[in-house]
Amino acid sequence: MSSERLIYLPLGGAGEIGMNAYVYGYGKPGKERLILVDLGVTFPDMDTTPGVDLIHADISWLGERADRLEAVFVTHAHEDHVGAVAHCYEALGAPIYARAFSANIARRKMEEHGHPEDAVRTVSAWPEQVSAGPFTVGFLPVSHSIPESAGLVIDTPEGRIVHTGDFKLDENPMVGEPFDPDLWAEVAKSGVKALVCDSTNVFSDHAGRSESEVGPEITKLVEGAEGMVVATTFASNVARVKTLAEAGQRAGRSVVLLGRAMRRMIEAATETGILTDFPKVVSAEEAVDLPRQNLMLIVTGSQGERRAASAQLARGKYRGLELKEGDLFLFSSKTIPGNERGVIFIMNQLSEKGVDVVDDSSGLYHVSGHANRPDLEKVHALIDPQIVIPMHGEHRHLREHTKLAEAGGRTGILAVNGTMVDLTGNTPQVVDYIETGRTYLDGTVKVGALDGIVRDRIRMALNGHVTVTVILDEENEPLGEPWCDTMGLPEIGTSRAALVEVLEEDLNQFLMRADAKTLRDDDKLEEAMRRIVRQTAKAEIGKKPEVTTVISRMK
Amino acid sequence: MSSERLIYLPLGGAGEIGMNAYVYGYGKPGKERLILVDLGVTFPDMDTTPGVDLIHADISWLGERADRLEAVFVTHAHEDHVGAVAHCYEALGAPIYARAFSANIARRKMEEHGHPEDAVRTVSAWPEQVSAGPFTVGFLPVSHSIPESAGLVIDTPEGRIVHTGDFKLDENPMVGEPFDPDLWAEVAKSGVKALVCDSTNVFSDHAGRSESEVGPEITKLVEGAEGMVVATTFASNVARVKTLAEAGQRAGRSVVLLGRAMRRMIEAATETGILTDFPKVVSAEEAVDLPRQNLMLIVTGSQGERRAASAQLARGKYRGLELKEGDLFLFSSKTIPGNERGVIFIMNQLSEKGVDVVDDSSGLYHVSGHANRPDLEKVHALIDPQIVIPMHGEHRHLREHTKLAEAGGRTGILAVNGTMVDLTGNTPQVVDYIETGRTYLDGTVKVGALDGIVRDRIRMALNGHVTVTVILDEENEPLGEPWCDTMGLPEIGTSRAALVEVLEEDLNQFLMRADAKTLRDDDKLEEAMRRIVRQTAKAEIGKKPEVTTVISRMK
Repeated sequence: MSSERLIYLPLGGAGEIGMNAYVYGYGKPGKERLILVDLGVTFPDMDTTPGVDLIHADISWLGERADRLEAVFVTHAHEDHVGAVAHCYEALGAPIYARAFSANIARRKMEEHGHPEDAVRTVSAWPEQVSAGPFTVGFLPVSHSIPESAGLVIDTPEGRIVHTGDFKLDENPMVGEPFDPDLWAEVAKSGVKALVCDSTNVFSDHAGRSESEVGPEITKLVEGAEGMVVATTFASNVARVKTLAEAGQRAGRSVVLLGRAMRRMIEAATETGILTDFPKVVSAEEAVDLPRQNLMLIVTGSQGERRAASAQLARGKYRGLELKEGDLFLFSSKTIPGNERGVIFIMNQLSEKGVDVVDDSSGLYHVSGHANRPDLEKVHALIDPQIVIPMHGEHRHLREHTKLAEAGGRTGILAVNGTMVDLTGNTPQVVDYIETGRTYLDGTVKVGALDGIVRDRIRMALNGHVTVTVILDEENEPLGEPWCDTMGLPEIGTSRAALVEVLEEDLNQFLMRADAKTLRDDDKLEEAMRRIVRQTAKAEIGKKPEVTTVISRMK
Repeated sequence: MSSERLIYLPLGGAGEIGMNAYVYGYGKPGKERLILVDLGVTFPDMDTTPGVDLIHADISWLGERADRLEAVFVTHAHEDHVGAVAHCYEALGAPIYARAFSANIARRKMEEHGHPEDAVRTVSAWPEQVSAGPFTVGFLPVSHSIPESAGLVIDTPEGRIVHTGDFKLDENPMVGEPFDPDLWAEVAKSGVKALVCDSTNVFSDHAGRSESEVGPEITKLVEGAEGMVVATTFASNVARVKTLAEAGQRAGRSVVLLGRAMRRMIEAATETGILTDFPKVVSAEEAVDLPRQNLMLIVTGSQGERRAASAQLARGKYRGLELKEGDLFLFSSKTIPGNERGVIFIMNQLSEKGVDVVDDSSGLYHVSGHANRPDLEKVHALIDPQIVIPMHGEHRHLREHTKLAEAGGRTGILAVNGTMVDLTGNTPQVVDYIETGRTYLDGTVKVGALDGIVRDRIRMALNGHVTVTVILDEENEPLGEPWCDTMGLPEIGTSRAALVEVLEEDLNQFLMRADAKTLRDDDKLEEAMRRIVRQTAKAEIGKKPEVTTVISRMK
């Protein structure tokens, strides 16, 4: 067991779509030199993470081995791939490599957190390579829904790994490099040990569609519009933003970009030379003075985010601009599962204003950035690896993708977060399970998903809260009566008396009868009072609230 | 203004999909005799209604006029139409009319709440009619996704109203009455003043598909399965449950119904004579001893509900039955927007067990119960009303449906919840806006949506909670130091000291410096301490918690 080995260990992204973080290692067991591919976030929701600001993979395994971490490689600038680089920089410290556009975005994050921007290093596309310990890594351009996405060509003493990152096979992506089958074939020529591959769209049976297909449809739509036109898409989909802007321009409209992310992305794409001929934009201030039928707003908030420009416009006036009867609002986007309610909410607000809403249900105004099932088969064949390791997917995606690989006569490995796979030799095997999980950025504090903090908040949301206060004198006798304060509970229960009074009465009865031993013992007293509150509340209002008991002793 | 008028007033269901409740009235203004059509619920979610059990329309307007309410008519037994009849019976008291199957379901609800079952009266289908004050009401059979759905033919001194309820145009619905164009034409023959019409699928451009189309596909799927087969659908979709059971039977499988709602619905359909030839079922206990490849489970929980049979089976063993590698799980259902996360969660749990999941993405295994756009056009033409009033839809559906009616040369009225429309004479007009809203059943208590109770719970979920306790002596001087308890907050903040200690320290500083006037005044003291807690917490953990302050005065 002392010979060198090549390991693969997903910490995030394998078993979910979001918070990507994949470790590769090479060396003697327990002494491998490591690299990390991507370090992204995932977004909280009220069901499971109320009040949480951001979520990233629990990197404590890696943090404890930071001295062995050679580098972090970022495949592209989507938040689920780059979003946590600054949040984790203190713990990991390793240099961050990315192509120019992704590096630009990563540096902005580092700067916001007061970390050194030069920790982010720009790498050119393949054939340039970076040495990182036993690894040599090159950035293979792939088409996706953001500029300069890259697959990684990771050369190891045990052979070549191709880690696709997020990708689609688009030969005409409008902005950035098209899918180049010759280049992929060249990379594969010398043999590929493992293809670690995007699984997002494995359930989509048709071949993926090109970004170039939406332009003509959007143009037609905008040209037919009579009032103001507003379109929303992911700000990072620079090609789409450009397509939208050009459609506006062609229809004789002035283009306005609204939302911080929208302006920031276009800025980054322009700074890095990716975007050279973006239509001239006007500011919101200038737009206010222009006739509404001459305006084309391109705005953030395609997922119904409450503070984004789309939500603000749906609510009322935003930066002087206001939607009206006869205006058109285009969702040039798909709704990510879980965001439906927020998006529908906005659609209805727009409907109330008399705005015509067009979404992607027709399939005309949006294409996905991920490879569909036939595209995946094509890539398996093109790269022709010994092993396929599906990543970037929920369990069902990974499983389906594994089956697809096996149907093609290859070894498929279903490795979810925390599964350490030894790729050395001819038969890959699972050698360890690492405890993984999620880290919540909660306000400004990082908390573990299992710390119980968020669980307590969820319980208060479901059950409400009661504070019980009791004062005991030097003899441990109650000084006056106990009292209760409630939060998030109805004032009156089934007995038609005030809930707090019924609670206080029951607590008082208990205290008057409690023996000296109980009254002396904070824990016992607390537990007993908590039980009474929950029982009485259950009888009165049908709910068992969370309880905080404060026992004050006069000593 | 003292002449009689005919009014329409939606209290729920117009501006949302759920909690249907539509009032019709006839008489002198303010003295109209009233009927209510449907009295349903809608379901809570963590985003807006954590801890709430059920939601129905705020019926206080109607409750204040209960002496003028002649009757409640229930179109069909879906929860969003019948779910609140028992919850509101005390406030309204009126008799409830429904066809046999819906009446059976309504009576079960009344019984559970200890209300008289004979308040629910069974009505036969058209041409039978019920007199209710100035109204005469008949139940026109329509096809939908539950047995014995009915449109209401409401005859008024001002003419006939057809209130469709939920419907589709299915000439072969497998269970219950097919769509009968001749019957509809007969009803329309003498002229219809207003068509009050289901709007759910107004955005679906193709003609609706028949329930009979899914049977052959499901049969094919089940016949090809090798392990255990589990299928989930809405329990109330008795036709679908039967189709599933027959597919199982045909494949030589024993059928097991799992979940209370599933058994209850089949029971009601059998009791009322709707279901006469349902395949023989075996109990879960019997099924345990049968080979898994001979089993077909039909289970509740198509929407990912955590306690339903599907979720239990996805988690592990349920009533002795357990899913394994190679089993098949069919979602013969669509996911209602907002339920995606729950459904996907179950799909992934099933994937972890090696179960193959089939959903409706192929379009083969589910059809909708609502009329699509071309079907709506057909019904507009068939009924040929003067006025179309879209209902059963979010704002965007109502608006689109109104436009559709107007495109057909009819008067369309967009009336959302609370809009009172006077339908007398030739020109309908909005005559009033009633304050409407939602009533939450929260545990056993009814609370108003705007009471602030649920809002406080949401705030605790987002921000956590701090209890501050301070004791003041007879001179209003602090007795000892203040102390804090937190719930749902991290223990350590940015200063690396315990959060409660930092809070207590800042509060103590304040108390030591506070003037007598502040210390004397509970409100001032409370407000000041609350502010300190929120400020300090913001600095320490980046969050402003909810605060309960308890001030005890030794007097």
